[in-house]
Amino acid sequence: MAKDFTTRSEDYSQWYNELVVKADLADHSAVRGCMVIKPYGYAIWEKIQAQLDKMFKETGHVNAYFPLLIPKSYLSKEADHVEGFAKECAVVTHYRLKNAEDGSGVVVDPEAKLEEELIIRPTSETIIWNTYRGWIQSYRDLPLLINQWANVVRWEMRTRLFLRTAEFLWQEGHTAHASQEEAIEESERMLDVYTTFAENFMAMPVIKGVKTKNERFAGALETYCIEALMQDGKALQAGTSHFLGQNFAKAFDVKFATKEGKQEYVWATSWGVSTRLMGALIMTHSDDEGLVLPPNLAPIQVVIVPIYKGEEQLAEISVQALKIKAAIEAKGISVKYDDRDTQKPGFKFAEYEFKGVPVRIAIGPRDLENGTVEVARRDTKEKETLQQQDIATKIEHLLKNIQVNLYQKAVDFRAENTNKADSWEEFEKLLDKGGFISAHWDGTSETEDKIKELTKATIRCIPLNNKQEQGKCILTGNPSTQRVIFARAY
Amino acid sequence: MAKDFTTRSEDYSQWYNELVVKADLADHSAVRGCMVIKPYGYAIWEKIQAQLDKMFKETGHVNAYFPLLIPKSYLSKEADHVEGFAKECAVVTHYRLKNAEDGSGVVVDPEAKLEEELIIRPTSETIIWNTYRGWIQSYRDLPLLINQWANVVRWEMRTRLFLRTAEFLWQEGHTAHASQEEAIEESERMLDVYTTFAENFMAMPVIKGVKTKNERFAGALETYCIEALMQDGKALQAGTSHFLGQNFAKAFDVKFATKEGKQEYVWATSWGVSTRLMGALIMTHSDDEGLVLPPNLAPIQVVIVPIYKGEEQLAEISVQALKIKAAIEAKGISVKYDDRDTQKPGFKFAEYEFKGVPVRIAIGPRDLENGTVEVARRDTKEKETLQQQDIATKIEHLLKNIQVNLYQKAVDFRAENTNKADSWEEFEKLLDKGGFISAHWDGTSETEDKIKELTKATIRCIPLNNKQEQGKCILTGNPSTQRVIFARAY
Repeated sequence: MAKDFTTRSEDYSQWYNELVVKADLADHSAVRGCMVIKPYGYAIWEKIQAQLDKMFKETGHVNAYFPLLIPKSYLSKEADHVEGFAKECAVVTHYRLKNAEDGSGVVVDPEAKLEEELIIRPTSETIIWNTYRGWIQSYRDLPLLINQWANVVRWEMRTRLFLRTAEFLWQEGHTAHASQEEAIEESERMLDVYTTFAENFMAMPVIKGVKTKNERFAGALETYCIEALMQDGKALQAGTSHFLGQNFAKAFDVKFATKEGKQEYVWATSWGVSTRLMGALIMTHSDDEGLVLPPNLAPIQVVIVPIYKGEEQLAEISVQALKIKAAIEAKGISVKYDDRDTQKPGFKFAEYEFKGVPVRIAIGPRDLENGTVEVARRDTKEKETLQQQDIATKIEHLLKNIQVNLYQKAVDFRAENTNKADSWEEFEKLLDKGGFISAHWDGTSETEDKIKELTKATIRCIPLNNKQEQGKCILTGNPSTQRVIFARAY
Repeated sequence: MAKDFTTRSEDYSQWYNELVVKADLADHSAVRGCMVIKPYGYAIWEKIQAQLDKMFKETGHVNAYFPLLIPKSYLSKEADHVEGFAKECAVVTHYRLKNAEDGSGVVVDPEAKLEEELIIRPTSETIIWNTYRGWIQSYRDLPLLINQWANVVRWEMRTRLFLRTAEFLWQEGHTAHASQEEAIEESERMLDVYTTFAENFMAMPVIKGVKTKNERFAGALETYCIEALMQDGKALQAGTSHFLGQNFAKAFDVKFATKEGKQEYVWATSWGVSTRLMGALIMTHSDDEGLVLPPNLAPIQVVIVPIYKGEEQLAEISVQALKIKAAIEAKGISVKYDDRDTQKPGFKFAEYEFKGVPVRIAIGPRDLENGTVEVARRDTKEKETLQQQDIATKIEHLLKNIQVNLYQKAVDFRAENTNKADSWEEFEKLLDKGGFISAHWDGTSETEDKIKELTKATIRCIPLNNKQEQGKCILTGNPSTQRVIFARAY
């Protein structure tokens, strides 16, 4: 399974591309930049969805669904928004095909041209705020706390499976509020939800912060983000939550009557995470033997493999293996018993290792005699022989242990790869090494642009509750009041 | 709430349209033929999804995701398929907008024209079978049992919320098999899954059958279907399952090595249900007072409304109401306690009645004294006063009872509205009355077309396990061996 598999040190980028395809997570499709999410990859995404959806509902949100297609003119109504998205829009211009006259297939029917072109949603602020106009009249209609699970299309020129694809799956929350304070509170609440999810489920530590003006979402007054660090030292933006002010309410004329009877524009937020999280998950934990999945998101948490010769022995082992399976499943843990007779145990071991199954249990004839099983954990690759007694409880503890261990390992890695730079020379040296760099910046877009131009590094975020300290910008030497987080990024 | 609400007898079509919008299920959008599914409607769809997804997984299927966009040329590869879908395709021709030179907004950038146009999927057989070519080499790769939850676009000219929209949500199963028998078995299995779902969850009886050649899915050798009867006597196709033979395998060159080492084309099925089910659900049960939802799909199964004067009394009632709520919720039943002080009980009663909440519990000061509650059921509108003791168990039984009652009512309605016609005169008379008509047909497409032209009635299906009997075609008088089901349909 892991044969012909590039290692991380050989070529990290190649390692990632191969892993995604060979571990059956996703595949390239016939359509440029669009991926096929394969069943094993989709099963992880379903776990991500289910957990996030639960957390959204616990924080008072409901789901709804808005149209895929957006009239072109809507995009222009918010000036920054159109500036940000116009260059990557898939445009529907016709609504019918017809047979080619030369019999060569079908062609677009020129008579079925749309009066106004439609854009496939790159994000849904415009169509949603156009709809909210009809839903919001008074303060009693607020807050409106709506989320949508959907596909979106952004015509990216350079694409990579999960990390940057022309079509991707995501959720987008769009909320409406009666006051600025409440909207800001909501943006921050959802950033916290994303943080909890990243840390407790993906086992991925993140820095919470705000984006600089340059990196803000097109149309936002403030973009909150969580930033994670990948094993190659590059940063990855894992989720964003935007305080949109009254920009979209003004663009789409959405007002409400206050308790006092005044007409005011509504305050907005939007927030989203996407199938990009799959890329972050893969790159945070996996190794040269393949995928490593945190137990809380693994579609198969435990696999049981019988070691046997002949059908009779398999039958005997299966009796015990299925008892163990049932006992573990009773704890709410997903278990697969792989008794395929078309593959040998060694092949199966390699396969589940490559696919990142957190715990493997092997059971052979000697185990039957001794009342034992062999338990191997994917994260450390340690093996031990355990008594079958209380095996379900032992496995339950082991899974928790693996989850914690993966998180701690990622936290340690990030700590090792977060450094302060106090001069341009230091900054450049650290950039070659990779990782997060904490450095002073003079606060201007010009300096930020210049640094990006010189080094490809960007300001990932200004951390929330950032320590205020006097310092000098690493590029210009101008005075600065706080350090920000730089990195090269996905 | 029910004010200005058209009754079914006044105008059934108008009644439906008003109900969908006023009950907060869906709304028209700014994009022609595309709907917004509002939170309350989407909550019902989520329940439909969750149950179907469970049933698909129990029958061995896994989910995956394939691209939204399909190269135009793919559509042409299966002759019947392109014939069926070309006329209603949304076509993406460009991938970028730019600022208009006159400053009037954004325009399509003519330089960003796609070499080959892309179609927004009207259904995914072509892109999926093109992908399967890479996934299937040998009999060991089969069967491949994959489902996708997705949005699709079919540019319908006349649209109605849920029933016929340009964009709709659905699931589409696409399976690959080593033999014809196995593929047919799969098509029939999924028809059974749909039937179980329709009857046990939607409380909607259906006739299982196969379509005539005229009505088959474009590219199928056999289309199995379930047909339901709406309250206005019109039929509604609620789900289809297609045996596709080797048509798509041949079109996309998908072969597998048999155990004997021969190369053979793969056998296929596809099957789907959509947000159209929402329309079927609404029209099967609802009445002149609004929506009626079967408990198994109701987002709110029980609502508790306090009857009180003043804050102090509300506080007292709330203590008891919240105890009752917790007890009922412990049974896995969803309960809403509506203690809004902005609306009076009468308004709330009307609102939940209109929204089809199956059970309403009212609790006032006298109930506190007597240890009682008033329970009203939405289906029969009966009210009774019950002791609070064991209230959770009583409510649990009541919900089951309502579910059964709604199904039985629909079964009875269908029985009353299913008739035999043995002459053209009888057939026409019955058509005016509405309902399913069981009649002989000579088996030719010409006769079927002619009947449709004359009456707008179509053959809904040839029932499975249909009784064979000698008879004469109602139109031509030609000999026939079985009756088929006619109706006017949605």
